[in-house]
Amino acid sequence: MEVRVIATLQAKPDSIDAVHEIIEASRLETGNLQYDLHRDMDKSGSFVFFERWASSEALEKHNVTEHFKRFVSQIDGKLESLEIKKLKKIA
Amino acid sequence: MEVRVIATLQAKPDSIDAVHEIIEASRLETGNLQYDLHRDMDKSGSFVFFERWASSEALEKHNVTEHFKRFVSQIDGKLESLEIKKLKKIA
Repeated sequence: MEVRVIATLQAKPDSIDAVHEIIEASRLETGNLQYDLHRDMDKSGSFVFFERWASSEALEKHNVTEHFKRFVSQIDGKLESLEIKKLKKIA
Repeated sequence: MEVRVIATLQAKPDSIDAVHEIIEASRLETGNLQYDLHRDMDKSGSFVFFERWASSEALEKHNVTEHFKRFVSQIDGKLESLEIKKLKKIA
């Protein structure tokens, strides 16, 4: 079953590069269907990832990849907030 | 320029039908590229719309359609929370 993720983060200015770096590596993963980064048009420094994964297992594998763990360490202490939602498309 | 919307709502049980009804009418609008409804897998009653619109103008037209206004009146008082983000894809 496909699962989707919306991750919303409020970044301090010096963490923007790390946010970009994770995208390409994630898109190359088996099981990734979409990995788009957005900025909030009404809130400076707020970014939103919209991700589609072929299965929960694919998402779990993503969470232990080297590039994801590197991303987590790069943004450590540089975010004002982080919220992650796991979603199922119902219509 | 394409704009995207993520609308997150916490619904009381009797407002679920209205949430579904707006989808098909919105997808038929000129300028709508995607209008998907999701449920939060970790939070009962929490729903997330992910919408793509061809332009800000298309989104503004959506906000004054009869079906959108009917939806707003149907959910009036039946939501515990509603958050709407307007996004630009940057990567």
